[in-house]
Amino acid sequence: MGQRSGDPSAPARLAAPDEGIGADELALATRNHGLPLEALRHDVTPPGLHYVLTHYDIPYVPNAGAWRLSVDGRVRVPLDLSLADLLSFPQITIRVTLECAGNGRALLTPRPVSQPWLVEAVGTADWSGVPLRLLLAEAGADPAAVDVVFTGADHGVERGIEQDYQRALPLAVALGDDPQVLVATAMNGAPLPPQHGRPLRLIVPGWYGMAHVKWLRSVTVSDVPFTGFQQTVAYRIRHTAGEEGEPVTRVAPRALLVPPGFPDFMSRTRVVRPGPVKLFGRAWSGQAPVTSVEVSTDRGVSWERAVLDPLLDGQRWAWRGWHYDWASSPGEYEVGARASDAGGSTQPLEQRWNRGGFANNAVRFVRVVCVDDARSP
Amino acid sequence: MGQRSGDPSAPARLAAPDEGIGADELALATRNHGLPLEALRHDVTPPGLHYVLTHYDIPYVPNAGAWRLSVDGRVRVPLDLSLADLLSFPQITIRVTLECAGNGRALLTPRPVSQPWLVEAVGTADWSGVPLRLLLAEAGADPAAVDVVFTGADHGVERGIEQDYQRALPLAVALGDDPQVLVATAMNGAPLPPQHGRPLRLIVPGWYGMAHVKWLRSVTVSDVPFTGFQQTVAYRIRHTAGEEGEPVTRVAPRALLVPPGFPDFMSRTRVVRPGPVKLFGRAWSGQAPVTSVEVSTDRGVSWERAVLDPLLDGQRWAWRGWHYDWASSPGEYEVGARASDAGGSTQPLEQRWNRGGFANNAVRFVRVVCVDDARSP
Repeated sequence: MGQRSGDPSAPARLAAPDEGIGADELALATRNHGLPLEALRHDVTPPGLHYVLTHYDIPYVPNAGAWRLSVDGRVRVPLDLSLADLLSFPQITIRVTLECAGNGRALLTPRPVSQPWLVEAVGTADWSGVPLRLLLAEAGADPAAVDVVFTGADHGVERGIEQDYQRALPLAVALGDDPQVLVATAMNGAPLPPQHGRPLRLIVPGWYGMAHVKWLRSVTVSDVPFTGFQQTVAYRIRHTAGEEGEPVTRVAPRALLVPPGFPDFMSRTRVVRPGPVKLFGRAWSGQAPVTSVEVSTDRGVSWERAVLDPLLDGQRWAWRGWHYDWASSPGEYEVGARASDAGGSTQPLEQRWNRGGFANNAVRFVRVVCVDDARSP
Repeated sequence: MGQRSGDPSAPARLAAPDEGIGADELALATRNHGLPLEALRHDVTPPGLHYVLTHYDIPYVPNAGAWRLSVDGRVRVPLDLSLADLLSFPQITIRVTLECAGNGRALLTPRPVSQPWLVEAVGTADWSGVPLRLLLAEAGADPAAVDVVFTGADHGVERGIEQDYQRALPLAVALGDDPQVLVATAMNGAPLPPQHGRPLRLIVPGWYGMAHVKWLRSVTVSDVPFTGFQQTVAYRIRHTAGEEGEPVTRVAPRALLVPPGFPDFMSRTRVVRPGPVKLFGRAWSGQAPVTSVEVSTDRGVSWERAVLDPLLDGQRWAWRGWHYDWASSPGEYEVGARASDAGGSTQPLEQRWNRGGFANNAVRFVRVVCVDDARSP
């Protein structure tokens, strides 16, 4: 489809210098939502506070009992499974921190015009379901296959291409046992809410959100690389429009803090009183375990080491708590945190720009004013 | 507090012509969220899809069992109630459609700079709890009192005023039995989620959202009119900055449709195929029962009557379903619906502008393209 009159799609573009957020970006921002940062306090994010991004409409599934999942393609025995069938397989639960690949996009210059995330597109949940490798074993997936393609029930058009949402994983990732990829039927012990994939979604611990296909309808084993829109057009790291680009895969390290004190409604500037202020938050990386978090109150001029909470058994794929005791005195501050991981990655202070605004993990600073007037800020 | 350097607050303002959504408005849009319009299909909105607006931070309440609610001021016997105490009173459940007073603000010209809602700031839930009138009777509220003041645990600064969120109702409204004001402990049969007021909130059927105080800590009977920030500064209909203005109270009529067909990711333009298309949605008014819904596919040049679903017993304060069978043919359309109520109010086509962007209920049109190509839009 070209750009005929009447076309629903427009080409991808970058915002002009000083161009404010437009009507189309706002329409995405009002329907999708981030984690209100104070909700970083919760070890496990309640569903309504967990970030949500849906490309098209949230499918309406009044009767989850009628849902079917097919496992087909290069398999010995195709499967056609109900929810009850899935529950007859061994079940596991994994605590996973999910982050949108576009998190931080609206902070980039120039700004890629798409869902305008600041830094809130994250959340952590306990996901329960069947390890995908057990379903692939049951079907007898061809070990010489290349990709496993996942198709959701969400349908729309994007850059002129009408499509069901589809993404693929390399066969080795789909069969992996550390982490195990899940076909999840429950979030925090309850059936999936509509916006998180009711009744079925994929969970790929450590990968950005685009891989966790929601409203999962089919799993197709393929002996050729998958070339669908969301694999080869979207979700690539590109610096020029024409290049093939690198695929977006695992989550880069990031730390965020629970904003200290209390906010101004409009500016979201934080107000604290002089004295001890406990700074705390979460840090995660899908690439390697988090090894340190540092805190700065002067926009990165100086850094102090935060204390990491113990890494609990079985929580490699979830965020990790940290804290730092700050002695605040009257003045203005830019407070932020940066994470490093065992793979040697550290969050940068400067943006790593790309055309899609993906995998941006620059440190985010919060403006804090410390006032000594007990009655008013 | 004035506008000293270091102040967290800036004065209220209107956006300049053609000024895009700014960083402060975007920060509100990414943490708050509307109802994705396809979720109008649900009679009762799942909590994570119901709109959320919080002025300050969502309070963190790990132990709801320790929560206390005081009923004090001009009463014979002050009360200090736990959740268990509240559950010992008679309980009722009311299905209520809640809408933010600022819904539609971002569509106004000039645009008041605040939470930039399009039209999604709505949701419907079954709220359960104790009728407020029973608590006021138990405490022996002075019948000569004027206002009942409700204080939440959410704390912040707004336009230079540090405050707990507070709103008042006239005593007669607080004591009303049609509708009954509720101190709600449950949403859709479950404890309140954090973002909807865990563990207690006020529900005032028919009123805009600012009246439904969340994280409710105290109910204070007063013999003088309440003059707090959210009553006399915010939530007033003003056309000039200096005037006293009219208070924002009950919800004006509005109809919205489930967007037909499927969307383009970025433009949210809808795509349908030629042939019968069922248009359907919801309509509500807090002022008087909805009496009719009309549908236009030509941006209000012509209107056709929709069929209203039956009004079910006990659902006066909830939205009402409607539908209309549209015969679509290839072309471009602007599809919208407008509601009228028994009080004689009908949604306007033109905005009714005010400085705060409150109670705007102009008809909203959705762009729909009907394409006859079965393979591609």
